[in-house]
Amino acid sequence: MLKKVLIANRGEIAVRIVRACAEMGIRSVAIYTEPDRYGLHVKRADEAYSLGEDALAGYLDPLRLVNLAVETGCDAIHPGYGFLSENAEFARLCEEKGVTFIGPKSAVIHGMGDKTQARDSMRGAGVPVTPGSDGNLANVDEALELAETVGYPVMIKATSGGGGRGIRRCDSAEELIQQYPRVISEATKAFGSADVFLEKCIVNPRHIEVQILADSHGNVIHLYERDCSIQRRNQKLIEIAPSPQLTPEQREYVGNLAVKAAAAVGYENAGTVEFLLSGNKVYFMEMNTRVQVEHTITEQITGVDIVREQLRIAAGLPLSYRQEDISYRGFALQFRINAEDPKNDFLPSFGRITHYYAPGGPGVRVDTAIYTGYDIPPYYDSMCLKLICWALTWEEVIARGKRALDDMRLRGVKTTAPYYQQILSHPDFEKAVFDTSFVPSHPELLNYSEKRHPSEIALALAAAIAAHMAA
Amino acid sequence: MLKKVLIANRGEIAVRIVRACAEMGIRSVAIYTEPDRYGLHVKRADEAYSLGEDALAGYLDPLRLVNLAVETGCDAIHPGYGFLSENAEFARLCEEKGVTFIGPKSAVIHGMGDKTQARDSMRGAGVPVTPGSDGNLANVDEALELAETVGYPVMIKATSGGGGRGIRRCDSAEELIQQYPRVISEATKAFGSADVFLEKCIVNPRHIEVQILADSHGNVIHLYERDCSIQRRNQKLIEIAPSPQLTPEQREYVGNLAVKAAAAVGYENAGTVEFLLSGNKVYFMEMNTRVQVEHTITEQITGVDIVREQLRIAAGLPLSYRQEDISYRGFALQFRINAEDPKNDFLPSFGRITHYYAPGGPGVRVDTAIYTGYDIPPYYDSMCLKLICWALTWEEVIARGKRALDDMRLRGVKTTAPYYQQILSHPDFEKAVFDTSFVPSHPELLNYSEKRHPSEIALALAAAIAAHMAA
Repeated sequence: MLKKVLIANRGEIAVRIVRACAEMGIRSVAIYTEPDRYGLHVKRADEAYSLGEDALAGYLDPLRLVNLAVETGCDAIHPGYGFLSENAEFARLCEEKGVTFIGPKSAVIHGMGDKTQARDSMRGAGVPVTPGSDGNLANVDEALELAETVGYPVMIKATSGGGGRGIRRCDSAEELIQQYPRVISEATKAFGSADVFLEKCIVNPRHIEVQILADSHGNVIHLYERDCSIQRRNQKLIEIAPSPQLTPEQREYVGNLAVKAAAAVGYENAGTVEFLLSGNKVYFMEMNTRVQVEHTITEQITGVDIVREQLRIAAGLPLSYRQEDISYRGFALQFRINAEDPKNDFLPSFGRITHYYAPGGPGVRVDTAIYTGYDIPPYYDSMCLKLICWALTWEEVIARGKRALDDMRLRGVKTTAPYYQQILSHPDFEKAVFDTSFVPSHPELLNYSEKRHPSEIALALAAAIAAHMAA
Repeated sequence: MLKKVLIANRGEIAVRIVRACAEMGIRSVAIYTEPDRYGLHVKRADEAYSLGEDALAGYLDPLRLVNLAVETGCDAIHPGYGFLSENAEFARLCEEKGVTFIGPKSAVIHGMGDKTQARDSMRGAGVPVTPGSDGNLANVDEALELAETVGYPVMIKATSGGGGRGIRRCDSAEELIQQYPRVISEATKAFGSADVFLEKCIVNPRHIEVQILADSHGNVIHLYERDCSIQRRNQKLIEIAPSPQLTPEQREYVGNLAVKAAAAVGYENAGTVEFLLSGNKVYFMEMNTRVQVEHTITEQITGVDIVREQLRIAAGLPLSYRQEDISYRGFALQFRINAEDPKNDFLPSFGRITHYYAPGGPGVRVDTAIYTGYDIPPYYDSMCLKLICWALTWEEVIARGKRALDDMRLRGVKTTAPYYQQILSHPDFEKAVFDTSFVPSHPELLNYSEKRHPSEIALALAAAIAAHMAA
């Protein structure tokens, strides 16, 4: 087993990994930049090292992190999600310096990061991809011809793109002619490559992703799927496991597809194969070669500790489970509690948490790094807490979600919690009928009145009285 | 469904019931006496009523509580555990005033509270009871004769006794002659009845109890068993579900026995049938006609929300599950975090919680009513938090328990948490080989050094320096 792991991340995922290490008797090493000095991951890890004043540079410096791992006697690095987690160069440096990267081989990360290469691999493995180009486009004429074949709307995408950048939707030949040079220009500037490709645009799909685990002995299993259709501008808000919208046949089909996809590329460790579902059609979208934010809900329904398995796999152990050992029970929801103001176009609401009290009781799990008095630094993403609810039935898990959101106390910043209450009460959500158009097509859900804490009301009242008396 | 429920309890179980009501759209009414004014159950319920200055009187006044339920428009009362939860007169008053008592009929509570009557019912239903008297003893000669037949040691018990009082163990005829009048005298004074009976003493048994659910339509199911052998002076400390010490055959046997026992007495609502296991022999001990402190771990392994089922049953609905719908997965441990000092004979350690931060992450559930700044009142029991851990395997749940205990921050009072760490590390516990003699036979587990918070160390250091400089 591993002896000591450097956690190349911060926030709740770093705390999650510290906990897994603690349960397995592995020593954990945290890193932080100065704005994160009071981070919970720093307090909870066995050791912690500062990477300097700059909020981000330290977290994004592959060589420095690998060297630190070597210097502190770590035999492995867990990259978490975001930051360097899908940076093939980081994984390659680990391989070079003899530190185990807790994830797939660098070549696999690279192959999945290159979108046309990933499409080719999947097609080769018999995994359906959206209709579109074989490899990169030669010129706009090839794009126009292909678009006629697959039908509009189409997407022009940067081959090395990511994070929603370098993507344009075209609804007609005119738009395609207009957008084509723009994507090339954006791709060149942002990713240093002019390569682009074309895909049929799947309109209002459901976003279904399958969690997989693969060991270094050739075993690959899936842990069923998550439905991440509740998203806003490609940011997932509420994740669900399993999807309440799949038939048992569809569930088995996508599960097996994901295993096939992972096996085809020699995948190792935990990963996620993302699909778009449109009617009964399934298309491979991309593979995420890291632990995901929403791995928690898969843990709740299957009972499998995914981070523990990641550490075991990295140590060269075979998977703890065969496919037939994996079953799922009930439904889990994850609410990404973001420090944002939904009523103000989801503007980040960073600042001090003046009061925090964790929700609890049956079927409630919390993964967070916040505490009362914690200052949310403005340099990182706005997600400050993951509230995970589980219950045996869909109806009960919705009721539990509402209760737990109501139970939670988190004051000092605006959060997305009241907006999620609105989503939970929508009849289409209750009936489990939604796709990625749900959030944009329901702007009326932003019309809620905010519950105010009695002390805030008293303060506002006192201010009003003072103003009145002064007048 | 019920519309509004009065919760005749306080602390974490009152919060647990508030949560179940909230998830089911039922309005909740809390009660409190003045020392509990700042209790979390008061803050979280939809309404709350004071029952006066006296810490206990209000919680123990059946008539007043039933009248309050009527006055506030409640259609039901949930008694929780302790207090009036097994008071047949309270249930009878509810029946009389047309308020639904969330529990079995008063006659059943009475029948199970009378220990010889309960033994008779069980024998009649074919449920094995410990060898001993049929009904009450006529005199000491009958006791001596019986003791010869069943073999020493024996127990002389008050028929109306409870809470560990009115019980004496006798290892010989001389002791029996000596103790017999003492139990009669104690029983008369404490319970107003001179009735006593004799039971063979089962030495160092395992304490196994089965959770059952029964509706008003004659359906009875069990939710598997809990192992509560880790106890000190009849107080459970760590509870386990399912028992890691039972064979599948034993599991099925005790489960079916419990269903038989409940059906035989026309039981309704949630209840627990407690058994003593000695070798391969199983003896009925008692039936608890209420929700138990440790219902949580059964919820974790079966996924069934027991308090929700209680409310449904009370509303006259049939059980949500048939026996074949119930399965269990993994192992759950519950740690009763008591405000006690294990190193000082478990003396209560009441006072202010200066800092509390809930443990979290995978497989961790917390049921509590404490918060930072909460003053634990000295009038009630010392249990201040239930930490529940779940994992797929026995080995993992122990590791998780250690991690979660370590993760929890609870300062200002002494607690049993560090003692539980000691138990978790004992090889017999790791091997899942223990009975009710575990705690008394391992006094060495009290030899731990207390982790001290850096601020406390700084304070102690400052005091030492000051003392040195003054000298």
